[in-house]
Amino acid sequence: MNAAAVQDAPLVGIIMGSQSDWATLENTANMLKQLGVPFEAEVVSAHRTPDRLFEYAETARERGIQVIIAGAGGAAHLPGMCAAKTDLPVLGVPVKSSILNGVDSLLSIVQMPAVGTLAIGPAGATNAAIMAAQILGLTRPEIAKNVADFRAAQTDKVASKNIPGQA
Amino acid sequence: MNAAAVQDAPLVGIIMGSQSDWATLENTANMLKQLGVPFEAEVVSAHRTPDRLFEYAETARERGIQVIIAGAGGAAHLPGMCAAKTDLPVLGVPVKSSILNGVDSLLSIVQMPAVGTLAIGPAGATNAAIMAAQILGLTRPEIAKNVADFRAAQTDKVASKNIPGQA
Amino acid sequence: MNAAAVQDAPLVGIIMGSQSDWATLENTANMLKQLGVPFEAEVVSAHRTPDRLFEYAETARERGIQVIIAGAGGAAHLPGMCAAKTDLPVLGVPVKSSILNGVDSLLSIVQMPAVGTLAIGPAGATNAAIMAAQILGLTRPEIAKNVADFRAAQTDKVASKNIPGQA
Amino acid sequence: MNAAAVQDAPLVGIIMGSQSDWATLENTANMLKQLGVPFEAEVVSAHRTPDRLFEYAETARERGIQVIIAGAGGAAHLPGMCAAKTDLPVLGVPVKSSILNGVDSLLSIVQMPAVGTLAIGPAGATNAAIMAAQILGLTRPEIAKNVADFRAAQTDKVASKNIPGQA
Amino acid sequence: MNAAAVQDAPLVGIIMGSQSDWATLENTANMLKQLGVPFEAEVVSAHRTPDRLFEYAETARERGIQVIIAGAGGAAHLPGMCAAKTDLPVLGVPVKSSILNGVDSLLSIVQMPAVGTLAIGPAGATNAAIMAAQILGLTRPEIAKNVADFRAAQTDKVASKNIPGQA
Amino acid sequence: MNAAAVQDAPLVGIIMGSQSDWATLENTANMLKQLGVPFEAEVVSAHRTPDRLFEYAETARERGIQVIIAGAGGAAHLPGMCAAKTDLPVLGVPVKSSILNGVDSLLSIVQMPAVGTLAIGPAGATNAAIMAAQILGLTRPEIAKNVADFRAAQTDKVASKNIPGQA
Amino acid sequence: MNAAAVQDAPLVGIIMGSQSDWATLENTANMLKQLGVPFEAEVVSAHRTPDRLFEYAETARERGIQVIIAGAGGAAHLPGMCAAKTDLPVLGVPVKSSILNGVDSLLSIVQMPAVGTLAIGPAGATNAAIMAAQILGLTRPEIAKNVADFRAAQTDKVASKNIPGQA
Amino acid sequence: MNAAAVQDAPLVGIIMGSQSDWATLENTANMLKQLGVPFEAEVVSAHRTPDRLFEYAETARERGIQVIIAGAGGAAHLPGMCAAKTDLPVLGVPVKSSILNGVDSLLSIVQMPAVGTLAIGPAGATNAAIMAAQILGLTRPEIAKNVADFRAAQTDKVASKNIPGQA
Repeated sequence: MNAAAVQDAPLVGIIMGSQSDWATLENTANMLKQLGVPFEAEVVSAHRTPDRLFEYAETARERGIQVIIAGAGGAAHLPGMCAAKTDLPVLGVPVKSSILNGVDSLLSIVQMPAVGTLAIGPAGATNAAIMAAQILGLTRPEIAKNVADFRAAQTDKVASKNIPGQA
Repeated sequence: MNAAAVQDAPLVGIIMGSQSDWATLENTANMLKQLGVPFEAEVVSAHRTPDRLFEYAETARERGIQVIIAGAGGAAHLPGMCAAKTDLPVLGVPVKSSILNGVDSLLSIVQMPAVGTLAIGPAGATNAAIMAAQILGLTRPEIAKNVADFRAAQTDKVASKNIPGQA
Repeated sequence: MNAAAVQDAPLVGIIMGSQSDWATLENTANMLKQLGVPFEAEVVSAHRTPDRLFEYAETARERGIQVIIAGAGGAAHLPGMCAAKTDLPVLGVPVKSSILNGVDSLLSIVQMPAVGTLAIGPAGATNAAIMAAQILGLTRPEIAKNVADFRAAQTDKVASKNIPGQA
Repeated sequence: MNAAAVQDAPLVGIIMGSQSDWATLENTANMLKQLGVPFEAEVVSAHRTPDRLFEYAETARERGIQVIIAGAGGAAHLPGMCAAKTDLPVLGVPVKSSILNGVDSLLSIVQMPAVGTLAIGPAGATNAAIMAAQILGLTRPEIAKNVADFRAAQTDKVASKNIPGQA
Repeated sequence: MNAAAVQDAPLVGIIMGSQSDWATLENTANMLKQLGVPFEAEVVSAHRTPDRLFEYAETARERGIQVIIAGAGGAAHLPGMCAAKTDLPVLGVPVKSSILNGVDSLLSIVQMPAVGTLAIGPAGATNAAIMAAQILGLTRPEIAKNVADFRAAQTDKVASKNIPGQA
Repeated sequence: MNAAAVQDAPLVGIIMGSQSDWATLENTANMLKQLGVPFEAEVVSAHRTPDRLFEYAETARERGIQVIIAGAGGAAHLPGMCAAKTDLPVLGVPVKSSILNGVDSLLSIVQMPAVGTLAIGPAGATNAAIMAAQILGLTRPEIAKNVADFRAAQTDKVASKNIPGQA
Repeated sequence: MNAAAVQDAPLVGIIMGSQSDWATLENTANMLKQLGVPFEAEVVSAHRTPDRLFEYAETARERGIQVIIAGAGGAAHLPGMCAAKTDLPVLGVPVKSSILNGVDSLLSIVQMPAVGTLAIGPAGATNAAIMAAQILGLTRPEIAKNVADFRAAQTDKVASKNIPGQA
Repeated sequence: MNAAAVQDAPLVGIIMGSQSDWATLENTANMLKQLGVPFEAEVVSAHRTPDRLFEYAETARERGIQVIIAGAGGAAHLPGMCAAKTDLPVLGVPVKSSILNGVDSLLSIVQMPAVGTLAIGPAGATNAAIMAAQILGLTRPEIAKNVADFRAAQTDKVASKNIPGQA
C-alpha cells in the first residue's frame, strides 16, 4: 500500500468471499494504489458469515466508504447481498474459480439490483478499481487526474510496439 | 388447504422471492396438500427484504418448521442465503422467469452449501414437495404412506395408457 | 420528464444503439424521473454513426454529464467504445434482442474496461438508473434521499402481500 | 472410518457410478465421519450393473438406510434411477468428469423427480454430507449438534483471517 | 398402419417416457409405415415404471424386435437404461420438451453406452425410423429398396423447386 | 429483381439448404438488388442433393459467379462443403431454424475453412449481401459507389431520430 | 489387428477427418478387434478430399461394408456427408479437439439425417464399436455372443470392487 | 516475409487488439507469405487507441489495402469498429484468450455488419489468409494460382497417409 493509501481513510472497501479470491482481488488493490485511492480489504463470506456481511454493508457509509468492490466465485451471493444492505454503489467482480469459467458467477452477480458488474477474473478486478476511481474522480480532481494519466500511458504503450514480430 | 393442513402446525415453510413466483410454487403447495403435509407460504425477497429473510430463517426451527422450500428466479439468492442462516434442510426450486430458462437460477442455487436443488419450474416445485414429504416420512409413517400411495398411483396411470394414438 | 428533469441540466446521458432499444431504455428514463435525476437520451449507433459516438463521449463531461448509461443488443459495441473515449463512469445495459437472449450482449459489454454492467433487459435498465442515482447520491443528498425512500417503499410493498394465493 | 461409523449401522448409503468417482465421493465420506454419521459406500453402475442398482434401492430402507447419496458423471443416470426405486430421500452429486465440466451431469440429475441435487464436484460431495446430516439431525440431536458445531467453527475460521495479503 | 405393418410381427419397438412424447415419436411411426417396417409403440417411464422398462428391454429380442427407438425429454434416462438391459441396437430421440431446447436431453442420451442418438425433436424422430430401416435393410432387400426409393424421391423433390420465390 | 440484375450475368450465387430458408435469404436477394448486384438463387441440399451441390460449386466460376452466399440451418453443411469444391470466396449465413437459435449452425459454418461467416438470421443475410458488394466493389466502382451511398443513408437515418419517445 | 480381422473382409469401415483423430478412433479399432469384427480404417477429409469421401461412401456397400463409423471434430461434416451418399447405417463419433469440448461437433453430427451419434471422444469411439457389433450381431450369432460376453465381463468387473478406498 | 511481400505494397492489413494476439495472427502472416500476398501488420486497440483505429480504417483504402484481417479476443470490438469506418471487406478472427474459449469473441465479431468471420484461434487465422487470397484472386491470376496449388497439395497430403497406425 502506498503512503497515501495508508494515511488516508479508505474510500473503497474491497470484500471477497474467501481467502483464495485474494489472488484475483489483489489486482484491484494494486490498481487502486497506482491511482492513489485509499482502500480497505476483508474476507466476508455470504454463506459462512452472513451476519458479518450485513454489518459490513450497514456500516460502510458511516465509516467513509464511497464504493464497495465485492469479488466472489461460484454462486457469488456476496455482491448482491451487500447491495441489498447499502445504498452505496457496489461493483461486482466474478472470480473464475467456478464450474463455467465464471460465467455462472457473472450471471449470479449481474442479475442482482444495483450491482455494476465487471469482467470475470483479474481483468475485471483491475477494471473495478479504474471504475471506482472514475466514480470518485467525479468530485476528486486528483483522482480524476491519476485516471487520465494512467489511460494516456496505456495509449502510448500500445503505440510504441506496433510492428509485432518484425524487425 | 385441506383440513389436516389447516389444523396442524406447519412442518414445511415455502418462501419465494416475489409474488409472481407463486405461479410456480403453487405446485409445491398443491402437492403438499395432496400428501397431507401441513405448510405455510410467504413472499420473502433476498434483495428487498434481507432482514426479514434472516429473521425467517433464524426462527423457522423454533416455530416447528422441519424443511424449507425456497423458490427464486434470476440471481436466485433466496435459497442459499436462507441456508446460510439455518441448519434445517433447505430445498431450492429455480423459477423459470430468467434469461437462460432458469439455468442461471439453477447454477446460482445449486452452488450454495446445504441446498438440495430440484428441477427448474413447476416440475421442480412439485418434486420439492415430494422430497420434503420423503424427508418427513422417515419418522412419520402416515406421510410415508401418502408418498407410497401417490407413487403407486402414478405407476398405474402410466400402465393404463400404453398404446399411444392407436385404437 | 418531470419538472426537475426539464429545468435542470442533465446529469445522466442515456444512449442506445437503435430506436428499438428505447423499449428497454425507457425503463431507465422512468426510474431516473422517479428519483429526480435530470437526464438526456439519444440514439447513437456504434456501427452506423461511429463518428457521432466518439463526439458524444468526448464532449459529455464538459456538458455536465456525470454518468453515461449505454444500452445495446447483439454485438453491443456501444458501451465499450463509449468508455474508450471518456473517463466518466459508463453503465452498460444489455438489450435482449439478440440470439442468445442477451447473454452475447452481456459478454460483449462486460469484458470492455471501465463499464459497469447491469442485468439484461428492462430490469437492468431500471437498475442502471438506481445505480447512477447512487453514484450521484454520494455528493448530492437530495438524490441519496430519493433512493433511500424508493428502497424503503419497495421493502414495505413486499411485506404487505406475504400470503400468496390465500384468503 | 472412525469408531462410531464402524460400530453403528449405516444411516447413509453412498453409491457411485464407477471406481473413479471415489475421488469426489470420498469428500462425502470424510464429512460424514466428521459429523459422526455412520455410512456405507459402494460402486453401483446404472449401465453395467442395472439389476444390482435396483436391488440396492429396493432394500436400502429395510437395511436401515435413511438417506442415499448418489454420485455420477456423464449421463449420470444413477441418482435418478435410484430414486425411481425407493421412497428414501436421494441426494445427487454431479461428478466433474464429463464434457461440460459436469453441467451435463447436473442437468441429468436435477431433472429426475425426488432427487435433491448438490453442487458439481468435491464441494457438492461435501455439502451432500452436511445436508444428509441436517436431515438426520431433525430427529437425532447429537447429529444436529455436530452440524451446528461444524458451522460455528467455519464462521470463526473466516473471521480469523480477514486482512488478506496484509501485515 | 399399413397392411404389412399390421400383419407382420413388429421389428422395431418404439418406447417413450410419457404420453406427451407421442407428438414427437408419431413421426417415427409414420416414417416406419412409409418404409414398410412393422413396429409396436408403448409408453414406458424410467421414473414411474422402472420395472416395466426392465422387463420390456429384457424380453424385446425374444419377441422378435431388432431395433428399439426410445424417445425421452428432460433427464431422458429411458434410452440409456433400456440399452443397459439389452444387446439390441437402441436409437435415442431427444424430445424438445425440456429446459435447454432438448440439448440437456441430447447430452443425457448420447453419453450412455450403445445408444445411437438422433437429432432433437420431430426431425430426429423421423430420421430414427430411416436409420432403423437402414439397419434392417442390411439383410432385408425389400426394406432396403423402400429406403432407396424414399431418398431418390427426396432428391427429386429438391430438384423440382430450385428458384425460390420467383416466377 | 431490378432491371440491372435481370439483364446482367449473375455475379453472386445464393444457395440455401431448403425452400424454407428463403425467408431468411430473401433478405440477401433484396439487398443485392438495392446495391445493383446481379445474382442467381437456388435450393441445393447438402444431404438430399449432394451431387448437385458438388456440380454447382465446381461450375460456379466458369459461369461468372464471383462470390457464393450459402445459407443453411441445423447441421449447416452447405457453406463448408461448397467451399470444399471451389476457390471462390464463400460467405455463410446461419439460418435460425435450429435448436440453439442458430448458434449450432454458426459453429458448424464458421469452423470450415475459407468460409466468411455472417450473423445468424435475416441480419446476417442482409450483411452477406453488403459484404459481397464490398468484395465486388474492389474492382467495380459503380458497386462500390452503391455501397457508399447506402451506408451514408444509414448514417443520416440514425441522425434524424435522435430523441426517442420525446416531443 | 487380430487374426480374424486380418483374414476376413471388413464389415465396418472407420473413417476420420484427419490423422490426429486416430488417437480417438483407435479406441473403435481396438474394441472391434476385441469383439471379433473385421474392419478397415482410413483418413478421409470432407474439406480437403471431398471427391474421395463421395467415392468412399458410394462404393462401401459393394465392398462388403455393413456399417460406417465416421469420427470428426470441429465442424465435423464427415459423418453427415458420408450418410448423404450411402444407405448404410452411419455411426458418428464427435472428436474432442474443438472449441466447445466437442459439443459443437456433436451438434453438427447429430443433426444430419441418418447418423446415429455416440458420445464425444474416446468413450464414444469405443461405444461406436459396440453398437456396430450389436447391429452386425442381429444376423451374426458369433458377434452377438462376443458382445454378450464382453458385457457380462463388465458387470462382473464392477461387482468385484465394490468397497472403494476401504480395507 | 518473402521477397514478393517485401517489395510490393501491402494488399492485406492485419490488425490485432494486443501484442499477445500475435501468437494467433502470426498464422495469418505465414499463410499470406506462402500464398504470395503482400501485407502489413499492426497492434491497434479498440479500447486503448480508439482514435488510431479510426484513422487506420479511414486511410486503409487510399494506402492500397484491399482486405483487412482483424483479430481480437474478449469483447473483440476491433473487427466491427474497423468495419464501421471502411467499405473494404473486413475478415474477423476470434482469438481464444477469452472466458468462453473464444465463443464470446466469435459472437461479438460475427454480429457486426460487414465482417466475414473465421474460426476461433490459429485455424481461423490461417483460413482468413486463404479467404483474403481468394478475394484477391478474383482479379489477380497469380494469387488464384497460388491458392489452387496450395489446396491441391493439401489434398495430396491427405491421400498419402490413409492407413493410420497400420503397417
